[in-house]
Amino acid sequence: MVADRLESVRRYLENKGLSALIVPSNDSHFGEYIQGYYKCREWLSGFTGSAGTLVVTLKAAALWTDSRYFVQAEEQLRGSGIELKKIKIPGTESIEEWISAVLKPGEAAGIDADLISVSEHKTMAEALGNINLKLIEDPFNQIWQSRPPLKNFPIRVLGDSITGESTVSKHSRFLEKLGFKGDFAYIVTSCDESAWLCNVRGIDVEYNPLPLVYSVIEREKITLFCSLESIGTDEWEYLNSRGVDLMDYKIFPEFLKCFGEGCTVIAPESKISASVYSMATSAGAKFIPDTLRGGIIAQLKSIKNEIEEEGFRKAHILDGAAWVRYLKFIDDSQKSGKPMNEVMLAQKLIEFRKYSEFYLDESFEPIVATAANGAMPHYSPDPENPKKIGEGFLLTDMGAHYLFGTTDTTRTLYIGEPSDEERRDYTAVLRGMINLTTAIFPKGTRGSSLDFLARGEVCSREKLYLHGTGHGVGHSLPVHEGPQSIRMEENPVTIEPGMVLSNEPAIYCEGRYGIRTENLILCKRKSLNSYGEFFNFETLTLVPIEKKSIDIAMLDRRHIEWLNDYHDRVLKELSPLLNAEEIAWLSERCSKID
Amino acid sequence: MVADRLESVRRYLENKGLSALIVPSNDSHFGEYIQGYYKCREWLSGFTGSAGTLVVTLKAAALWTDSRYFVQAEEQLRGSGIELKKIKIPGTESIEEWISAVLKPGEAAGIDADLISVSEHKTMAEALGNINLKLIEDPFNQIWQSRPPLKNFPIRVLGDSITGESTVSKHSRFLEKLGFKGDFAYIVTSCDESAWLCNVRGIDVEYNPLPLVYSVIEREKITLFCSLESIGTDEWEYLNSRGVDLMDYKIFPEFLKCFGEGCTVIAPESKISASVYSMATSAGAKFIPDTLRGGIIAQLKSIKNEIEEEGFRKAHILDGAAWVRYLKFIDDSQKSGKPMNEVMLAQKLIEFRKYSEFYLDESFEPIVATAANGAMPHYSPDPENPKKIGEGFLLTDMGAHYLFGTTDTTRTLYIGEPSDEERRDYTAVLRGMINLTTAIFPKGTRGSSLDFLARGEVCSREKLYLHGTGHGVGHSLPVHEGPQSIRMEENPVTIEPGMVLSNEPAIYCEGRYGIRTENLILCKRKSLNSYGEFFNFETLTLVPIEKKSIDIAMLDRRHIEWLNDYHDRVLKELSPLLNAEEIAWLSERCSKID
Repeated sequence: MVADRLESVRRYLENKGLSALIVPSNDSHFGEYIQGYYKCREWLSGFTGSAGTLVVTLKAAALWTDSRYFVQAEEQLRGSGIELKKIKIPGTESIEEWISAVLKPGEAAGIDADLISVSEHKTMAEALGNINLKLIEDPFNQIWQSRPPLKNFPIRVLGDSITGESTVSKHSRFLEKLGFKGDFAYIVTSCDESAWLCNVRGIDVEYNPLPLVYSVIEREKITLFCSLESIGTDEWEYLNSRGVDLMDYKIFPEFLKCFGEGCTVIAPESKISASVYSMATSAGAKFIPDTLRGGIIAQLKSIKNEIEEEGFRKAHILDGAAWVRYLKFIDDSQKSGKPMNEVMLAQKLIEFRKYSEFYLDESFEPIVATAANGAMPHYSPDPENPKKIGEGFLLTDMGAHYLFGTTDTTRTLYIGEPSDEERRDYTAVLRGMINLTTAIFPKGTRGSSLDFLARGEVCSREKLYLHGTGHGVGHSLPVHEGPQSIRMEENPVTIEPGMVLSNEPAIYCEGRYGIRTENLILCKRKSLNSYGEFFNFETLTLVPIEKKSIDIAMLDRRHIEWLNDYHDRVLKELSPLLNAEEIAWLSERCSKID
Repeated sequence: MVADRLESVRRYLENKGLSALIVPSNDSHFGEYIQGYYKCREWLSGFTGSAGTLVVTLKAAALWTDSRYFVQAEEQLRGSGIELKKIKIPGTESIEEWISAVLKPGEAAGIDADLISVSEHKTMAEALGNINLKLIEDPFNQIWQSRPPLKNFPIRVLGDSITGESTVSKHSRFLEKLGFKGDFAYIVTSCDESAWLCNVRGIDVEYNPLPLVYSVIEREKITLFCSLESIGTDEWEYLNSRGVDLMDYKIFPEFLKCFGEGCTVIAPESKISASVYSMATSAGAKFIPDTLRGGIIAQLKSIKNEIEEEGFRKAHILDGAAWVRYLKFIDDSQKSGKPMNEVMLAQKLIEFRKYSEFYLDESFEPIVATAANGAMPHYSPDPENPKKIGEGFLLTDMGAHYLFGTTDTTRTLYIGEPSDEERRDYTAVLRGMINLTTAIFPKGTRGSSLDFLARGEVCSREKLYLHGTGHGVGHSLPVHEGPQSIRMEENPVTIEPGMVLSNEPAIYCEGRYGIRTENLILCKRKSLNSYGEFFNFETLTLVPIEKKSIDIAMLDRRHIEWLNDYHDRVLKELSPLLNAEEIAWLSERCSKID
């Protein structure tokens, strides 16, 4: 199958005078999840992981993916004639190095102009040196016979009582932040940015409550490009009354081509495709890049207003109740000797979440991982072969979208009795999580300054986790949101009141276990004094933290105080949603340690 | 006086067709301290602070300096017609903004080409826009009649038993790190870099054990440009035998002008003057910038070898004994009611340091600050008006150069009984110092990741210090050394085994007190396991930390354990140098807390 498909790509290449085709994994919106229509790399290679770039030449083929997918890719590529290239492993050449070695100078490699951003295009073209990087139209319209169609589902409108701010107000704050004098067209290709700006949501991609949409912001209006069939009359009128014009998704390219001389087109170069750039400037418009990290809209969106904050709090109470039932279910099953497996447990938490009418969807692919499976940070249970829950750590990392907020929680339980080393690792992770939670920091602090408060505790055990400590979280929008982060790597974005971030230090012992404890935290104003302004965090997540694996002697008084206070709050805030038996169980789980 | 001097500058400007003269505070080596010969800005303005840039136009004059010097500059500039510009205060225009506003487009501002680096020149020329920035020869040779001459003092050679590495070996490691194929001339203008490379020291500037020297590295040899009168026959032979040619300091410009076509000149653009650049490329040589942060030599120099580390340890034992006598002197004076003042105390510590034959000099201007004076991070006692030591915190920040190592220590004592707030502030600073001291971190960690371990404790009190937590320290070389640092600001340099850094969190309460506790720490290899390599710190400084102001309830067990272990070590390592009475006193100071 894969061989036939590669063959058809090679015929295409020959027809077009190309020597290679580069097939990335994204769609033209550069989001985290894509529809089947865009899964060309998967169709062509047989590799189903979410990340990876395939390059096919007339004689060879290779696929680059990261450590999460090495095992899976090795299996799925076996016998395909596609070589696996392991990213970040010493000795692995880059895509550009490989192409430069395989092609001759002057030969051309093609890439779909819709699937590469302007900034990536610059970088790649430069790295390819004397190999010509050619922007082409989507080749899979020809090659992929049974390609699934692009699907559009109904679009919902969120009122100001949920978003806390009308599109009119967002538009006006955007104009202020842009500070541009004269006429302009600002292009928004990220679906979550248009969704935030126009207060709309959809279900066009997995795990993200998003419609596939573009928008163009001008001084006097916003034009939203969406499937007009997916939008009801009420929604249409609602949007129109807020200064949002609607046009069909398919019209977007034609619309871009109308920006003539005298027009100024603005966008972040990392977020618009080479194709959008070329169409928008084809009639003579001048282009100005938005150089703010992540772009203006992402920066505005990252600061939640009070209504959004309140929505996050409500979502976490609902989610906390579901987690309590989930944790109690595991406890009960253990006591009664009922067997459990990873797939069933993930379904169980989803089932409990569905008790709430406001639950929309999971916010990412569920992770329930027993023992050694927990050592893979992005593991997901295999429905074909559900893994039985055995002795050792049991890690659950699951999140949900509610109508008014998004959650992302990790708890690590222990089935059986933890060893001293396991206790010490678990406690180090908990110390780190609490250190970051209780930080007080001055205005102007970057996430990279705070990262080591959490990571340092894991390093004290001479262990590591290779991911960031915290990512931004959207408001009933993608659970991974920029530009804010708490990572070792430098990120010039400062942590500001209203930002929601995850706090998830971890320890992974390969082949043995994974431990991660994750809460969402909201940055708040703490005080203003003669030294300046200070911020701190409010914990949003309300899920008990298992005490069984804590080595209490390793905690300082302030960690113990925080944990006891937190459990008091969990019990108080969740009890109204629970029955007597659940409250009794939770009370025990939330009892004080000393 | 100042008026006459400004007048002579204005006559000079008119003669030269210039509209402004920019007078910086540095010499052509861009070090921290300069000889009287280079104190043109001080002579011209009457302002004696170490940092500041003066700009004189035909009608106006202004001086930019930082917060350390606002009060002093205001006083010293009064009536001079020179306006004070407070750097980093909202509303203060930059030098370039001011010049652009005062001059007309096309007019020229001059600056001595010896006193501006290539990178500063680029930045300033760009910021000046259509004002012409003209590189000129030193105008003060004409203007300053009674200018002191440039002085050169004897140069010492340090043997391999002190430096741990011969110039031959340093030269060969330099070539390896440079990795340049073909002939080249690498220009070194920083005196401390030449001193490290050629294993020489001098006393040509205050507080830095440096001769005024340049060097040029080629593949086969190093040429050291120094005052040939200052070098003895033995030293001359010693250097020659290590591949170091000697040429006179005054020949350096002519030497640079010999690099013809086919030659490649290399240097960090931030460290060579515009004048050196222009001379070195005047005969057609090609210039390649050394883009490593701080340049290759600074990076090599920052990693101490085992002999240098051992020298640091020995220096800290000698210095620790002096500090014990100093602290005991203060204690005895208090008990006997003998009055003390800041100037006398600074002299006292120097006197105790001189007990050691290996003591060379102070490593920076002594800071002894009683009560509110301590709130000024760079305060220095006024010999004209010695301030009596009163109730409250007494901060001493003093360092020394010994033959084989450099020290920099701050201790904050309390005269009287501290209030609760004072105790809490003192303890927060101590917690922060210990947090950083005890950090374990993976290879690849930048100082900005570690900074908040110390700073965060001060922020927890909703207070701040505006300086970095740690600076690099040279080996019997300048006490402030790059490229390593532990600061909030991003610095891509990672902390590596062999680097020596200060660890000095602080709290400043304006008008009331300053608290700072500072040790030097040495980065060491801790372990190598399946996660990778981990580093930690060894504390070099051996001076008891006053326990009187500690709020013990605020310390965690690990802080208490560290402090008790540290005091055990201080007592054990210093006792051999102390008499019975001193040992008895120190034993009490080093007794355990619980």
